[in-house]
Amino acid sequence: MGEKQDCSKTAGKPIRCRAAVARKSMEPLVIEEVIVAPPKAYEVRIKVLCTSLCYSDITFWKRNEPGFYPVILGHESVGVVESVGDGVDEFKEGDIVIPQWMAECKECETCTSNKTNICSKFPFSISTFSCRDETSRFTDLNGQTLNHFLYVSSFSEYTVVDIVHLTKLDFSIPPNKACLLSCGVSTGVGAAWRAADVESGSTVAIFGLGVIGFAVAEGSRLRGAKRIIGVDLNPEKFELGKKYGITDFIDVRKCKNKSVSEIINEMTDGGADYCFECAGSTDVMQDAFNSCRRGWGKTIVLGVEKPNQKLSLDSLVILHSGKTLIGSLFGGSKPKTDIPILAQSYMNKELQLDGFITHEMKLEDINKAFELLIQGKCLRCVMWMD
Amino acid sequence: MGEKQDCSKTAGKPIRCRAAVARKSMEPLVIEEVIVAPPKAYEVRIKVLCTSLCYSDITFWKRNEPGFYPVILGHESVGVVESVGDGVDEFKEGDIVIPQWMAECKECETCTSNKTNICSKFPFSISTFSCRDETSRFTDLNGQTLNHFLYVSSFSEYTVVDIVHLTKLDFSIPPNKACLLSCGVSTGVGAAWRAADVESGSTVAIFGLGVIGFAVAEGSRLRGAKRIIGVDLNPEKFELGKKYGITDFIDVRKCKNKSVSEIINEMTDGGADYCFECAGSTDVMQDAFNSCRRGWGKTIVLGVEKPNQKLSLDSLVILHSGKTLIGSLFGGSKPKTDIPILAQSYMNKELQLDGFITHEMKLEDINKAFELLIQGKCLRCVMWMD
Repeated sequence: MGEKQDCSKTAGKPIRCRAAVARKSMEPLVIEEVIVAPPKAYEVRIKVLCTSLCYSDITFWKRNEPGFYPVILGHESVGVVESVGDGVDEFKEGDIVIPQWMAECKECETCTSNKTNICSKFPFSISTFSCRDETSRFTDLNGQTLNHFLYVSSFSEYTVVDIVHLTKLDFSIPPNKACLLSCGVSTGVGAAWRAADVESGSTVAIFGLGVIGFAVAEGSRLRGAKRIIGVDLNPEKFELGKKYGITDFIDVRKCKNKSVSEIINEMTDGGADYCFECAGSTDVMQDAFNSCRRGWGKTIVLGVEKPNQKLSLDSLVILHSGKTLIGSLFGGSKPKTDIPILAQSYMNKELQLDGFITHEMKLEDINKAFELLIQGKCLRCVMWMD
Repeated sequence: MGEKQDCSKTAGKPIRCRAAVARKSMEPLVIEEVIVAPPKAYEVRIKVLCTSLCYSDITFWKRNEPGFYPVILGHESVGVVESVGDGVDEFKEGDIVIPQWMAECKECETCTSNKTNICSKFPFSISTFSCRDETSRFTDLNGQTLNHFLYVSSFSEYTVVDIVHLTKLDFSIPPNKACLLSCGVSTGVGAAWRAADVESGSTVAIFGLGVIGFAVAEGSRLRGAKRIIGVDLNPEKFELGKKYGITDFIDVRKCKNKSVSEIINEMTDGGADYCFECAGSTDVMQDAFNSCRRGWGKTIVLGVEKPNQKLSLDSLVILHSGKTLIGSLFGGSKPKTDIPILAQSYMNKELQLDGFITHEMKLEDINKAFELLIQGKCLRCVMWMD
């Protein structure tokens, strides 16, 4: 990393480059040439080095939200700054940056507080525009506007991102590892470190063993959790998860006479200290709440459910159990603060990232990556732009 | 307080004394003579000095649970130790003690932790017996067994309480103030201090202004909360609540065009830091959750709902809001640890208790106290035994 760009030729001008455009829900992405406008004020144009596919790309691709298409998906990536807009002091050409869909303005009352990672000046929403003005930087060769996705749109050789959504990395970390820190891995490790604040000797239960679930395990392992119980439908996940510290496995399909929560309560003599819901299901959220320890058990909701799904909890159980339920975006991590900490942890050979990359390919093969992830046959497919 | 008992005459023998016995749901209590057996191992027999009526007595008196009657209700009181059973070193004759329905054994993994107040060796349940063996110490003059209530049964001149449910007070505090620390006031102040850990400068919203609600305000006032919003159906509560620090009032009956949570979100520019549900209604719990601040808002459930009522929360709101929901018995306070702290705070002229006592009467007038509390015409009726 750290390659030099010759920006004198492109700065201030539109760039024509390749992107994988999603034109319709559930239809293969189309590799085509697009035009990426120069960055406006407080924006940065980035040459994407590599990008990885996260399940949230698929979640939104499956939904057919009005006005969502055509769109450039992708929100896990790392890139190098090509040019910056007015008012940008924090970044300069050649910087290595990680875009993130959570903003961190570092100025508002919530960004300056250590109690939350939710920026109140730039609150998260499912935006299809650039961050500060309701316009897009992308057009196709017919002049049609292409939407942004989650403030990132990394399935393109170039993209434009607001400075509040960008983190600079000051040191060398391989791009295919760096892009993992953009979303899934940071969400999981962050959930263990920030949202839950897992302590040494704790008991942890993780519901749903994808990248986020394994990253929760990895974060818990690094915190010294003594027991990490994985819950999934696929027993192969247990072998994969052992390296991230998973000590026990519950195969949901084999739970016939006892519920998952009954099994966890028995295994842990009263419930896990921390339960992480990484499946995005209200039923699983209830299982997680029921599996955490009376008195101090914390249930952390990380999974993305369909809209309008209700979690229903018995009010007397809430009262009598003393349990805590907490929702967490990006695991409670602040991007500009925490992504460099995770990158440094990887460089110190503490945080394990390599195992999350199961496939590497070119952007052209993105539809294969979609297939692999939908079929549960990969953790992360990293797509290189060159 | 600190009066001397001549226990040589009664220790080891049954005591015949007056009690207010509840024989049927919703029917007036009957003042009659009962027999109180001597304390068994790890139990203490107490001469009750005074007792106050808490709404939970009425809640259980209204429900017609199978096997509940006849029962000696009452769980807010202070008394003096008359005699102790085998194995009791912590208490001796003449000690001033406050019974509490939460146990604190001081030995189990949860009692020795500062993360919860829920004793795992003696977990709370709606018991109709003494704590450690499934028998009663009460009989009527016909030999019929009378049930215990919440391990306390203070509507009797004498009662028997397990040592894990007793707190000793080492200093002088008027009995009518001391009995308030048994349940309601300690629950409210504790919720602000322990369950929520309200910080100086915080914004607080309290749903339901009875004793617990006012005590939450008092605890928040003592922590330096800058704004305390009371929510109730009765605007007279606002005047009463000002002395406990309530700065704003929302009359629920006047909320026509906007919901309570919309009003609180507007008043506080995004929600209160801490919302306390003291009404015992799942609808109010939802209002409270919706009224707390995105990012770090905490909703603390203190109210007792009817059994099997479900709190329903939108799963994406949980995820995106970063809000915390926590249930709390006795406000997260540990009885033996925290009741003396509250008593000392009162003696230091910090914690206000006097205003909670709106009526004082004799035990004989207990049915009048029931009427007053049911009609919402009192905060606490203190009943003296002599």
